[in-house]
Amino acid sequence: MPHISLPSGLPGIRGPMAFRPETAKPINELANILLFEPHSLSRGERELIATHVSCANECQFCQTIHGAYAAHFLGDEALVLQAKVDPESANLSPKMKALLNIAGKVARSGRDVTADDIARARAENATDLEIHDTVLIAALFCLCNRYVDGLATDMPESLAYFRERVPVMAAQGYQMPPTPVPGQ
Amino acid sequence: MPHISLPSGLPGIRGPMAFRPETAKPINELANILLFEPHSLSRGERELIATHVSCANECQFCQTIHGAYAAHFLGDEALVLQAKVDPESANLSPKMKALLNIAGKVARSGRDVTADDIARARAENATDLEIHDTVLIAALFCLCNRYVDGLATDMPESLAYFRERVPVMAAQGYQMPPTPVPGQ
Repeated sequence: MPHISLPSGLPGIRGPMAFRPETAKPINELANILLFEPHSLSRGERELIATHVSCANECQFCQTIHGAYAAHFLGDEALVLQAKVDPESANLSPKMKALLNIAGKVARSGRDVTADDIARARAENATDLEIHDTVLIAALFCLCNRYVDGLATDMPESLAYFRERVPVMAAQGYQMPPTPVPGQ
Repeated sequence: MPHISLPSGLPGIRGPMAFRPETAKPINELANILLFEPHSLSRGERELIATHVSCANECQFCQTIHGAYAAHFLGDEALVLQAKVDPESANLSPKMKALLNIAGKVARSGRDVTADDIARARAENATDLEIHDTVLIAALFCLCNRYVDGLATDMPESLAYFRERVPVMAAQGYQMPPTPVPGQ
């Protein structure tokens, strides 16, 4: 049960986003820019960064929903499951492995990212923007994971919820949840 | 030296914000709603939450600048220094101690926040909105601390920088940094 009274029927981050739409708006805008808008990293690659960080933070809701998005875009669920816990041995490009290494360190602490980590990404032709956005996606999911778990939000009872959300997000990007009906 | 090429003369979070103004806009909007707009928690109390979390995450830039803001609004620098490391023994209201306890747990992991932590805050008359915003301020600073340190941004050479920023933020709130001059 959530720690505060949240609108019913909206699991995970969507509950507190409906509770406080003022703060949900910029969070969704930031997610949309980083994960959905056109970029030199594919949507699947960016969702994989979000999923890896959410797994490192042990956030069940975020790692499941963004893992579903990553698997949809990459067309490979087994790859996502492996990249969550052990990207170095997954079938990923050397650049993605270098970026996931940075993201995993950011999940622990920004201070853990070393010049060698950055040099490794650069050697695989990662750009400044790709490095910046990897750090910021990882940092954003350190926010989202704590927002979801710090309020003890509901986890959907069925995996069907996550499957149903995939085509909605894939078509619309990150948007505000629907306004809850008063009294519900 | 920062891990990527950032505009010069903008230390801490302001460097990457100028590098990527698209993502800086929603981050500033979120900070402004949570820390600057009218609220049942004072500006000083909200800046104290930001400072406590930034100290827990060992982010020198964020704990110094938000500590300066908190000291300005609360009118007590010694109180801020104590609340950073040991809020339970600081001269704070029982409600603020309960909220800082929640914020400190969010800094580690959202999963560390217990029903007892929430019950303690409620017993001191914390509202759902105050609990929500405490969790989200803490989560936002887990983002900001990692953004600042994950890119190895510059720390100002002098404490004068922080003193000079206080009246600017106190008057204007959280706004976009100035557009950098090309080539500088």
